[in-house]
Amino acid sequence: MRPNFSLRLRVFNLNCWDIPYLSRRRADRLRRLGDFLNAEGFDLALLEEVWSEQDFHYLRQKLSPIYPAAHYFQSGVIGSGLCVFSKHPVQDFTQHVYTLNGYPYMIHHGDWFCGKAVGLLVLQLSGLVLNAYVTHLHAEYNRQKDIYLTHRVAQAWELAQFIHHTSRKADVVLLCGDLNLHPKDLGCRLLKEWTGLHDAYLETQDFRGSEEGCTMVPENCYVNQRELEPFRLGIRIDYVLYKAVSRFYISCKTLKTTTGHDPHSGSPLSDHEALMATLCVRHSPPQHNPSPTHGPAERPPSISVLREAWTELDLGVARARWWAALAGYTATLGLLLLALLGVLAAGRGAREAVLLLWAPGMGLVLGAGAACLIHMQEAKGLCRARAELQHVLGREREAQDLGPESQAALLPGQQEGRRAKEQ
Amino acid sequence: MRPNFSLRLRVFNLNCWDIPYLSRRRADRLRRLGDFLNAEGFDLALLEEVWSEQDFHYLRQKLSPIYPAAHYFQSGVIGSGLCVFSKHPVQDFTQHVYTLNGYPYMIHHGDWFCGKAVGLLVLQLSGLVLNAYVTHLHAEYNRQKDIYLTHRVAQAWELAQFIHHTSRKADVVLLCGDLNLHPKDLGCRLLKEWTGLHDAYLETQDFRGSEEGCTMVPENCYVNQRELEPFRLGIRIDYVLYKAVSRFYISCKTLKTTTGHDPHSGSPLSDHEALMATLCVRHSPPQHNPSPTHGPAERPPSISVLREAWTELDLGVARARWWAALAGYTATLGLLLLALLGVLAAGRGAREAVLLLWAPGMGLVLGAGAACLIHMQEAKGLCRARAELQHVLGREREAQDLGPESQAALLPGQQEGRRAKEQ
Repeated sequence: MRPNFSLRLRVFNLNCWDIPYLSRRRADRLRRLGDFLNAEGFDLALLEEVWSEQDFHYLRQKLSPIYPAAHYFQSGVIGSGLCVFSKHPVQDFTQHVYTLNGYPYMIHHGDWFCGKAVGLLVLQLSGLVLNAYVTHLHAEYNRQKDIYLTHRVAQAWELAQFIHHTSRKADVVLLCGDLNLHPKDLGCRLLKEWTGLHDAYLETQDFRGSEEGCTMVPENCYVNQRELEPFRLGIRIDYVLYKAVSRFYISCKTLKTTTGHDPHSGSPLSDHEALMATLCVRHSPPQHNPSPTHGPAERPPSISVLREAWTELDLGVARARWWAALAGYTATLGLLLLALLGVLAAGRGAREAVLLLWAPGMGLVLGAGAACLIHMQEAKGLCRARAELQHVLGREREAQDLGPESQAALLPGQQEGRRAKEQ
Repeated sequence: MRPNFSLRLRVFNLNCWDIPYLSRRRADRLRRLGDFLNAEGFDLALLEEVWSEQDFHYLRQKLSPIYPAAHYFQSGVIGSGLCVFSKHPVQDFTQHVYTLNGYPYMIHHGDWFCGKAVGLLVLQLSGLVLNAYVTHLHAEYNRQKDIYLTHRVAQAWELAQFIHHTSRKADVVLLCGDLNLHPKDLGCRLLKEWTGLHDAYLETQDFRGSEEGCTMVPENCYVNQRELEPFRLGIRIDYVLYKAVSRFYISCKTLKTTTGHDPHSGSPLSDHEALMATLCVRHSPPQHNPSPTHGPAERPPSISVLREAWTELDLGVARARWWAALAGYTATLGLLLLALLGVLAAGRGAREAVLLLWAPGMGLVLGAGAACLIHMQEAKGLCRARAELQHVLGREREAQDLGPESQAALLPGQQEGRRAKEQ
């Protein structure tokens, strides 16, 4: 590779709000999105909430002259909603479905049925290996009383671990998506801390778009204004994150968002705003090419975030076990009721009451039994994330005993990411 | 690293058949297993079917002086049953739970409740990065009419993809576990083909143990003899697989199995036989250190296996969709029945029949509805694996058009694995 190697990467991200029968003006928005992507010719377009595979196929057909590579990440009952379009050939696709993603009995929220996931595509661009990830985490329905907070933290950890383990030979890592996390939320901090990814909005040299980079703004006519009431300017929950892992430097030259309208000031493409980033990858000059273990002094990794996540997961485990126990006791009560009804039926007493209570009794046993299984599974999933975090924290204690150098080597992702950031 | 670097790695693998209340002489077998592992001091002990976390904690306590690092992979409702004990510090743990793993309504088979998974531990041994994987795939209950064949093929593909994507910076890859696959089964061939892993039994310089390396043998008093009837010598479904990825050569010096008794000729440790391998990792001499793209001539990757897997998954998708449709129609019929009962109840006709049929009607709707969701989810999971295979096959067609060099570069895992095998 040439020492003055330089690569410009134009990336598009949008949560498309493409829900069949529910989203307004779906077909028109999709058509205009296709036209815009074709006109712009991004290197990569990463989309979320494309809940209709038919719509994906429509886009694939429309975009195929400019974006010959396309993939839809299948998952759950409905599909993950994630898809990608690439101007360049894609070497590999794979995905990871999050272990925890809400509850099947919360039908009105629907996240469980989507099987939220992270999709990975590996590209080789001029000899550079790019791992691009696209994801969509569990929605936040009530910020004051968020029953999915722990699931989102566990998802952020799984996402960080998936990136950490699959990007070891990548030169550049790119993560786009709707994280459903505000920048200072625990999950967002955990993700950035463990992977060392940089936030394009915070790092860009040139930002044009909505105030404070918000990706859900009150100006957007499709946004639920009541939900945005506490946030005057809107919220920032969609991200372009990146890092260079090896001998490269990466920087964000420009970041644009739409501002409640489509890029031509027409009606919006979605209820979310689109993100358009121009990233520049350069070969690191020799004087700025420190080895991973002998790089410039870095601030020690923020273990406090890992501890905070551990505590949140620990509380989640206790809650999940409490619900599992409650459901278990309820199912047992239901069984006792059925046994009582059986005895009454055998004695031919209260025949009508037996017939009437037979269905609710069965419902109680089956419903509570299913809820018990769901929360036992939830507890196991949370235990898994907690154990992985516990292991990291244990290593941190050992590193502290050994001195600051070992401590700095604790989070390779973070260190590499920071090192690779263009200064 | 010294040019004459050499590392001896002693590995133990056993499916422990540790099922609370069901497995015979559990406590005694576990105690003897602990004693044996302590006496032998393997580098790694990888265990499957440790279904009781209490038993894991017993082993952890017993083994901690010799194996200070231990981990239990939490998953599903019960737990994955997978655990590891390591003499050396472990840098990282993570796991991947298989998307497809049987059906929750097959309660008597129980696999769904375990959340079968693959666990990964990353170790640094004398500067060498070792990725060790432990797994347990879905059981085969009826070889003649195997309703889980497609799930096991999908699991083998997910396992291969997980190894492929997470081992890119590893020097050595080791996979141990109960694959529930005979050596010539499609899943086993697919796994080996896509990852380039070598089978210790086929490659070892010195084998001592059961005939044909079988890991379930009729001599074992815990084995269900009726199930083994078609196989005179037994079956080989537990494996030690390995490869060197980068500048190393790996070989299997010795492989031992138990032979229906414990290693001291006492009663068996499990219904499976234990595998004990001594692997030797050496720095590759410069003349045998070809670069991945300029290595010695390799036989082209066996695309026929990928095609075979694609066909199996495609059939599986059709089957899953058929079941989902059938369950959907049944749920609709159940709804109609409930509506009819509602009308009858409103008209005060056939009161007793209404009360009697109310519960079965509800059961039909809920049961068939749940089955519909389960098979829709199954179809999505199979579609996902099929799409990934389709992408690989598409690349193969392109590579064929471009010539033999590109074709050889198609399966990097395979190529690297073959290259690294000690000649």
